[in-house]
Amino acid sequence: MTSIPVTVLGLGPMGRALASAFLAQGHPTTVWNRSPGKADELTARGAVEAKDVADAVAASPLVIVCVLDYDAVREILAPATDALRGRALVNLTADTPDRARAMAAWAAGHGIDYLDGSIMTPTVTIGTDQALVLYSGPEDVWTAHRAALASLGGTADHLGTDPGRASAYDVALLDLFWTTVSGYVHALALARAENVSGKELAPYALGITGLMSRIIPRFAEAADEGRHPGDEAGLATAAAGMAHVIHAAEAHGLDTGVMAAAHAVARRAVEEGYGADGISRLVEVLGREAPNRKGPVGPAQR
Amino acid sequence: MTSIPVTVLGLGPMGRALASAFLAQGHPTTVWNRSPGKADELTARGAVEAKDVADAVAASPLVIVCVLDYDAVREILAPATDALRGRALVNLTADTPDRARAMAAWAAGHGIDYLDGSIMTPTVTIGTDQALVLYSGPEDVWTAHRAALASLGGTADHLGTDPGRASAYDVALLDLFWTTVSGYVHALALARAENVSGKELAPYALGITGLMSRIIPRFAEAADEGRHPGDEAGLATAAAGMAHVIHAAEAHGLDTGVMAAAHAVARRAVEEGYGADGISRLVEVLGREAPNRKGPVGPAQR
Ligand SMILES: NC(=O)c1ccc[n+]([C@@H]2O[C@H](COP(=O)([O-])OP(=O)(O)OC[C@H]3O[C@@H](n4cnc5c(N)ncnc54)[C@H](OP(=O)(O)O)[C@@H]3O)[C@@H](O)[C@H]2O)c1
Ligand SMILES: NC(=O)c1ccc[n+]([C@@H]2O[C@H](COP(=O)([O-])OP(=O)(O)OC[C@H]3O[C@@H](n4cnc5c(N)ncnc54)[C@H](OP(=O)(O)O)[C@@H]3O)[C@@H](O)[C@H]2O)c1
Repeated sequence: MTSIPVTVLGLGPMGRALASAFLAQGHPTTVWNRSPGKADELTARGAVEAKDVADAVAASPLVIVCVLDYDAVREILAPATDALRGRALVNLTADTPDRARAMAAWAAGHGIDYLDGSIMTPTVTIGTDQALVLYSGPEDVWTAHRAALASLGGTADHLGTDPGRASAYDVALLDLFWTTVSGYVHALALARAENVSGKELAPYALGITGLMSRIIPRFAEAADEGRHPGDEAGLATAAAGMAHVIHAAEAHGLDTGVMAAAHAVARRAVEEGYGADGISRLVEVLGREAPNRKGPVGPAQR
Repeated sequence: MTSIPVTVLGLGPMGRALASAFLAQGHPTTVWNRSPGKADELTARGAVEAKDVADAVAASPLVIVCVLDYDAVREILAPATDALRGRALVNLTADTPDRARAMAAWAAGHGIDYLDGSIMTPTVTIGTDQALVLYSGPEDVWTAHRAALASLGGTADHLGTDPGRASAYDVALLDLFWTTVSGYVHALALARAENVSGKELAPYALGITGLMSRIIPRFAEAADEGRHPGDEAGLATAAAGMAHVIHAAEAHGLDTGVMAAAHAVARRAVEEGYGADGISRLVEVLGREAPNRKGPVGPAQR
């Protein structure tokens, strides 16, 4: 089996990991990055560094782009739109479903085959069994390139033809991930304020992920069925638990913004009469028009 | 080995689980609850329901209390203070470290042996291998009662003599737990808004807990050492990821309070020049005096 040439645009930590995995699987690999000096390790292993984006694109039938966000993707691709015609563009940059659909429409308008993808695992997993990359977009583009994309390792799932679908899973999973990480750094700060070290807390924190393994499928089922029994732990108990955390954090002068926002949602549900329901009731409460809606996040806030 | 008599005050879901576990291990078990009708299943299995708290306390050398919060504990124990003298009181109600220390001081002042405990696992785990209960308080009280407390099953760890220590671990772990759960219900709501069901999302959400298993010990070590290398993923990337989530949630009119608060912390760190640092840098940023400090959570907010 001959490995097709691949171009990787963007050599941040993730772009470098992607290019490295393609090289490792024997793909002739062309790379490009906005600012210089990121390609040295890759060219030492046989990658070709293109002098500009149009040249980079012209080198391969399959072009991967993985940069900070879709604004950066558009800036990068503007001078290479003609060069991309008739090639496949796989956008592994993380962004929102609506932006993925807009990008797919732009690609279609320029005769570019397009897949949108979301990388769900860190750089170190790329090229290993641990990698997880989600894709969505036209079935024929997926079929044509899935073999080459398998070089990224691990699991590669095609979620359907709606180009926004990989991003939809991505944002929902990033929502869980970044909220969890925010909770963990706050827990470490709170523990430290109580003279409990990270090393002391970590084994028990791992136990919390164990609890989540049980909660995740149960809440998913409850949400799908719209039934939220509170026999194990209800929303009122949850709100009291969150209040204890806020109280303890404030006693040490810690920022309590995240937990206060979570508490406000739980309290709203209790006030609406759902105090005896299970926590998964919040999926319905959150799903309604939000009272604190402030309009889209502008660039200044990013 | 004869099992000592045990009294359980409070028959919410957790109190009932505790009493049930003591009964199962052959302890003569006396129970009491503020409102009637919660003891029937337990008395059918041999528990004795006391007519008031003082009677309940007088029945056993070891008294367990597990109710909503410490205000409720104080209300319950007020008429039984004299009856408690010379007995051991194990408070398994969740609350904050300072309240645990205040309760320990109150107990000491009335000649009551006192342990403060925190139950880290749900009701269904009590009496099984999966239970995790943390204790703190005087070594001799722990030594005298650890055998009886082993009836609750699983892991029982004594964390030291400071009575606030079990609560300190508890609030830090509840911080992680409730933040994670808040992130998950929000992720389910966001997925649903994008026509992704809970069943479709759940397998990937379980993958996120897998990522946390790797992150938890690494961030703990970084925090303990005060070194926050950003080689894998930096704070600027994190802030961009959070902004995508906010953007996607707002596009569907979802409440974005939790992620907006998390984003504000990450953005503050980026503005302070830590954009290239690892996410664990936030432990230090959060550990400083908070800009949004508003004073303690009053009862009206609970
Ligand atoms: N790192 C991870 O573990 C991970 C995991 C899953 C998904 N992802 C996603 O992968 C993508 C890339 O992440 P990353 O870790 O490599 O770091 P990143 O900081 O998100 O992206 C860095 C790359 O973006 C480029 N870039 C930024 N703004 C640009 C602009 N206006 N024009 C042209 N290029 C621009 C940078 O070029 P310069 O070098 O010139 O600045 C660099 O190549 C992101 O969407 C991220 O969410 C990353
Ligand atoms: N459920 C869990 O999975 C779990 C897990 C870990 C820790 N915990 C902790 O265990 C404790 C008990 O939880 P729970 O699940 O049993 O439910 P809960 O709703 O937290 O507590 C219910 C119990 O508190 C009593 N109570 C509330 N206010 C009272 C007052 N002012 N005076 C007297 N009694 C009062 C209730 O009596 P009435 O029946 O008369 O209302 C009932 O016995 C909490 O601190 C909770 O955080 C629970």
